[in-house]
Amino acid sequence: MFIYPPIPLLATETTANLGPMILAGVLLSLIIIYLASKLGGEISRALNLPPVLGELVGGVVVGASALHLLVFPESGATATDSVLMSFLQLVAGLTPEAVPEVFNTQSEVISVLAEIGVIILLFEIGLESDIRELKEVGYQAAIVAVVGVVAPFTAGTVGLMLLFNVSTIPAIFAGAALTATSIGITSKVLSELGYLKSKEGQIIVGAAVIDDVLGIIVLAVVASLAKTGTVDVVNVIYLIVSATVFLLGSIFLGKFFNKSFMAVSDLLQTRGKLVIPALIFAFFMAFMANVIQLEAILGAFAAGLVLDETDKRKELDQQVVPIADILVPIFFVSVGAKVNLGVLNPFVPENRAGLIIATFLIVVAIIGKLITGWTVTGQEKINRLAIGFGMIPRGEVGLVFAGIGSASGVLSQSLEAAIIVMVILTTFIAPPLLRFAFKEPSETAEKLPNADTAN
Amino acid sequence: MFIYPPIPLLATETTANLGPMILAGVLLSLIIIYLASKLGGEISRALNLPPVLGELVGGVVVGASALHLLVFPESGATATDSVLMSFLQLVAGLTPEAVPEVFNTQSEVISVLAEIGVIILLFEIGLESDIRELKEVGYQAAIVAVVGVVAPFTAGTVGLMLLFNVSTIPAIFAGAALTATSIGITSKVLSELGYLKSKEGQIIVGAAVIDDVLGIIVLAVVASLAKTGTVDVVNVIYLIVSATVFLLGSIFLGKFFNKSFMAVSDLLQTRGKLVIPALIFAFFMAFMANVIQLEAILGAFAAGLVLDETDKRKELDQQVVPIADILVPIFFVSVGAKVNLGVLNPFVPENRAGLIIATFLIVVAIIGKLITGWTVTGQEKINRLAIGFGMIPRGEVGLVFAGIGSASGVLSQSLEAAIIVMVILTTFIAPPLLRFAFKEPSETAEKLPNADTAN
Repeated sequence: MFIYPPIPLLATETTANLGPMILAGVLLSLIIIYLASKLGGEISRALNLPPVLGELVGGVVVGASALHLLVFPESGATATDSVLMSFLQLVAGLTPEAVPEVFNTQSEVISVLAEIGVIILLFEIGLESDIRELKEVGYQAAIVAVVGVVAPFTAGTVGLMLLFNVSTIPAIFAGAALTATSIGITSKVLSELGYLKSKEGQIIVGAAVIDDVLGIIVLAVVASLAKTGTVDVVNVIYLIVSATVFLLGSIFLGKFFNKSFMAVSDLLQTRGKLVIPALIFAFFMAFMANVIQLEAILGAFAAGLVLDETDKRKELDQQVVPIADILVPIFFVSVGAKVNLGVLNPFVPENRAGLIIATFLIVVAIIGKLITGWTVTGQEKINRLAIGFGMIPRGEVGLVFAGIGSASGVLSQSLEAAIIVMVILTTFIAPPLLRFAFKEPSETAEKLPNADTAN
Repeated sequence: MFIYPPIPLLATETTANLGPMILAGVLLSLIIIYLASKLGGEISRALNLPPVLGELVGGVVVGASALHLLVFPESGATATDSVLMSFLQLVAGLTPEAVPEVFNTQSEVISVLAEIGVIILLFEIGLESDIRELKEVGYQAAIVAVVGVVAPFTAGTVGLMLLFNVSTIPAIFAGAALTATSIGITSKVLSELGYLKSKEGQIIVGAAVIDDVLGIIVLAVVASLAKTGTVDVVNVIYLIVSATVFLLGSIFLGKFFNKSFMAVSDLLQTRGKLVIPALIFAFFMAFMANVIQLEAILGAFAAGLVLDETDKRKELDQQVVPIADILVPIFFVSVGAKVNLGVLNPFVPENRAGLIIATFLIVVAIIGKLITGWTVTGQEKINRLAIGFGMIPRGEVGLVFAGIGSASGVLSQSLEAAIIVMVILTTFIAPPLLRFAFKEPSETAEKLPNADTAN
């Protein structure tokens, strides 16, 4: 007869015991993240600011800067800094010996969920960017975009290196974080003001789309440099070429792949017949980009651009929305939570250097984009100030830079905090500046009460 | 001037370096899971079987039994058993020293995702179970349900202990796994045959709903016993009472909570205004159930039952579907992947004991439910065979038992494999048996080609 072993042979004792604790930690973290994102997002919206700003600030409040509910080992926190771990010891019977392992594992799980969140975010941005529209906006948008990338990047990187003695890789990373333009925030304000279809509006939106593409290529190159730790010209050229070829190549090959994708999806009959093949494709592209030393989000963005061209785009978009709704806030709140804004506290004398850097980044971020308005040629009566202001907000794309930079470990605490403050401030000032440039009273901002940044 | 440290002070070197590898491992695992679930599910559907069966078998194929693409440390696998890790070493430059940590972390992430998947599954089942309908089916469904839980549980547990010398806790766990009835599979077949609204159909569906509730209480009690490792009568009574009070209490208090939930959701304006509060509630309930030593899924199920009563139920249900579509397959495929069916290979003499146990479980699983048909009283012309057959399939609920049992570490490899085979076989034979009982030709099964198990 079969004798059942009294002590299970499989499952190491520790994993089996810690499983429910890790799950409890992850569930609590998700509850905190969702509460922070919703409270922050709704308050932000009520103040007529983009919700993503509130989600970020919500993360700052629950994170390393204030409440310590959500802290991460990557940002130097240990298990004893985590209020959540203390809470689990109090109510769920977590033993002190198990705390470090539970803390590390649940932090790792939340970090991976945040990374999947940003992959889904870029996939969604790709799905919603119509590359065909770019043809209509023409070369003026392209000039605005290129100047808006090159000017702040060069001024930021060179300035940090020469004025502040920042070493090359972090300086390049911070410079790159200045290149983004948030298409969501600008296009929301433009549509509120009724200027989305104006000449200025079209140039701004077109430039923001090109900016997204350029920014993601810049990010992929910069993050890859951060991995190797050295900057050599051959490698930079290789990375720029490979990122560009990867993106353009996927879009080109995607035209052929589209038909097979549609055919496969039409054959399927079970649940998730559209969203699962789409995610397989997005994750595959993200994996490929990761493997060739670029960033996973570049692949996800390319996948979104490719599937944007299918007939099922609308249906797919609808199904991706709730998935993005639950995963993307994990990313934004984590970015905020990982930052310790305490390093910029002006009352601590040692922080002065960090504060000066933050001020420098903000000035470069504003001027670097403002000048783009004056690069538009052949247009007599164009509102150059409006174009310049419209390019200022960094929004979610700037946060992607900060998040990737934080994960790669190249940014110092004060430089990371400076980037976050730059993103918050540029996103914060752009809507009132745009309203001022179009000389519209801000009351008209109520026109589209349900419009949402990321939509 | 601020001197930037050349080597980053934050972020431990290892975590920062392994981050992209862990992400690559998780992305690859998800691609494998989605491919296995879709291939398996679609083949299963084409053979007129429930897709969930195919997802499970897909997991078996990619897991510890065959391809070793997806293996877990809990089921005794080490990093060297993982084909995925070898692949990452080959294409992504993963170093051999880093393999164990990347393997453990990515396995832990996938396990937590699977647990969140089963939480979402039970939340969805709760959302779709209408407790008000039970009143109409009356006490006959209740008798069928109770007998269908008590008979196989008692026969299974006592039989395993007396005939096969299995120790108490694993015997109770295996007995409990016999109690489930899959409402999805039976109601799909009944609706295909056009008998969903018949007397028999109503009794079966009503009993299956009560069965879900009883089964989840049984599971919560049994899993809690597994954690403490001992069975004492006071503890068992305490657990049964606390699980029942938790479930009934949440439903009762939920009636009041419903209005606040609706009011909050109506106030919100940003993205995810319905699904995020719903998930906060579901995760909070899951956390509470976990903290009071019950199972997280009991809380998620209760949360689903509560929100089922709101006006927004339909809208919420629609938004939960894509989320479930991407998370639930991770659970089913993982359950299949963790099982090593090799331990039941009949050509290896040592496996004979395990095979005999599997056969015993299957016989008890069938007879224990079949007899329920003869417990219906006061109905002259009722088709008792149809009711008995209708209660047989274990489906997703049986897999939840196997998954929780595997995570708790109380099941031996052969007992776990025996439960999986029992679930597969009972789910497999129920549709043809039901068709036979109603003496319908199986061609009518084409009536509802798009109907799907979990819907």
